[in-house]
Amino acid sequence: MQGTRLDTGRIRAARRVIDPVFLDTPLYRCEALEPGLGCAVSIKLETANPVRSFKGRGTELAASLLAARGSTAVVCASAGNLGQALAWSGRNRGLDVTVVASRSATAAKLDRIRALGARLELVDGDHESARDRAAAVARYDGVRLLEDSLDVETCEGAATIGLELAGAVPSFDAVLIALGGGALATGVGHVLKALAPEVEVICVQPLGAPAMTRSWHARRVVTTGPVRTIADGVAGRRPLPAVLDDLLLVADDAVLVREESIVAGMRMLLEHAGLVVEPSAALGVAAVLEDRDRFAGRHVVTVVCGGNVDADAYLGWVGG
Amino acid sequence: MQGTRLDTGRIRAARRVIDPVFLDTPLYRCEALEPGLGCAVSIKLETANPVRSFKGRGTELAASLLAARGSTAVVCASAGNLGQALAWSGRNRGLDVTVVASRSATAAKLDRIRALGARLELVDGDHESARDRAAAVARYDGVRLLEDSLDVETCEGAATIGLELAGAVPSFDAVLIALGGGALATGVGHVLKALAPEVEVICVQPLGAPAMTRSWHARRVVTTGPVRTIADGVAGRRPLPAVLDDLLLVADDAVLVREESIVAGMRMLLEHAGLVVEPSAALGVAAVLEDRDRFAGRHVVTVVCGGNVDADAYLGWVGG
Repeated sequence: MQGTRLDTGRIRAARRVIDPVFLDTPLYRCEALEPGLGCAVSIKLETANPVRSFKGRGTELAASLLAARGSTAVVCASAGNLGQALAWSGRNRGLDVTVVASRSATAAKLDRIRALGARLELVDGDHESARDRAAAVARYDGVRLLEDSLDVETCEGAATIGLELAGAVPSFDAVLIALGGGALATGVGHVLKALAPEVEVICVQPLGAPAMTRSWHARRVVTTGPVRTIADGVAGRRPLPAVLDDLLLVADDAVLVREESIVAGMRMLLEHAGLVVEPSAALGVAAVLEDRDRFAGRHVVTVVCGGNVDADAYLGWVGG
Repeated sequence: MQGTRLDTGRIRAARRVIDPVFLDTPLYRCEALEPGLGCAVSIKLETANPVRSFKGRGTELAASLLAARGSTAVVCASAGNLGQALAWSGRNRGLDVTVVASRSATAAKLDRIRALGARLELVDGDHESARDRAAAVARYDGVRLLEDSLDVETCEGAATIGLELAGAVPSFDAVLIALGGGALATGVGHVLKALAPEVEVICVQPLGAPAMTRSWHARRVVTTGPVRTIADGVAGRRPLPAVLDDLLLVADDAVLVREESIVAGMRMLLEHAGLVVEPSAALGVAAVLEDRDRFAGRHVVTVVCGGNVDADAYLGWVGG
């Protein structure tokens, strides 16, 4: 395989610096979902930890390296989950953390970032505006910028999920991964292609935020206009070329799903798995719902990547 | 310590026969709950597994022993979680499983028991009627009866949670345990008293189903009239003397909580922890809500013991 920017040896080593609370997360068959989906389904659950998303794996790695190099401060743009995780990891290592987010980000995520002691700067506009502002803050203040999916630590931290999947018995036919900036997909994909190449790596993105998926199919960066999705965690418009290059090497497919399928997936995960998931974490189930023939009789794993929701919004989605 | 019926060596050995999918469950600090509860709170999460409750630990142990002794069938009474777990464990070992349950049990639990291939027999009346009927089935059919909390495997399986808590860093000041028949409380309590005696073991039961708590305080079996609680998993009326004897040795306290506190606890666990829990699993949070002064400034663990709910009933409880 032509090389991604990721390194399997470094990914194995990352397990030693990531707080164990983020590692070896539940992986289990969820038969109650199966009649509705027409295939065998396993859940890889990344929400039962102090920050309720997989992002702690990457921020633990990044914050460890920063602290080891003597950094005292770090800034990131975030839709909420990266910022919360970086606030958690930074606090434990004495780092001053600044998070830049869109004013329209999920309130529960912003509340947690503040509660963890990070400085939170809100900007008008969407996640791309937050990225621009975070870069400016880094430049003006001379603070290290942690860029999700571009900084390889964010990908290699997420990739530790791949180690846990590759080591699982029984193995799987396909893994469904939420696609946003690409850290999760390139991370998990890299490890699976290295250690379990028979597993199909399928990325899933909302139709309303399709930039990376369109880029993957075009094999070049395609930017898009305003995003229209409830899946705030994957709502980027400007894919990063280096991340796309990696994704082209490790993803077998990238598909787009409708909003109503995301909501149906959230409801199924509540009703049949007892799981509260944020919209991004329902993308895998949504993908099966939209293409049951493709998955019929196969065994898929869906990575339930985050569970940070505003409770009332959540109840509005699933209660209808 | 005067001896319970449980044995710490057997409990350690039990880890070798319990499917790993039930072991080493998430244990993590949940700071978002803390402002509302006034103390440090950690979650021990027993819902992220194929049967969505801790009962698999005990049924794995029991079914292993049955299979090893050549049994081919087993019957149990269940409010739903034990039956689902026994159906799961029995299926994997070729055991014919019969579950007797009240017709008024949670539908989602009954559906899962059927889906797992067990024979389900429904009876009029409450859980005590199901217990009587299961005993009769065992007698007439010559089938082994698995009695929750009385058969020591059910306690020693649950006790493996105690091993995971006793080995945790940092340690805790108190552990809050749902109290029903007593398997969970005597199991976890036994191990903590043996390995971490400084931890306060507090059992929590609904005011509407207080039999075991009243028995613990009276130091003799007290039976009660009809139960009135949404916490179906802990709704017994006739405590077992042998289980009470064990509980008297390992519990530091047993408290009763109101229905509105259980609902408030479920809502808090949804809103601040992103967890769907059944009413029994919110008893610990309810206990803190009702006696904040007792826990102020301390670090408590609450065992989130089950997450099997009817989705619409659940949304009715937490959506109000």
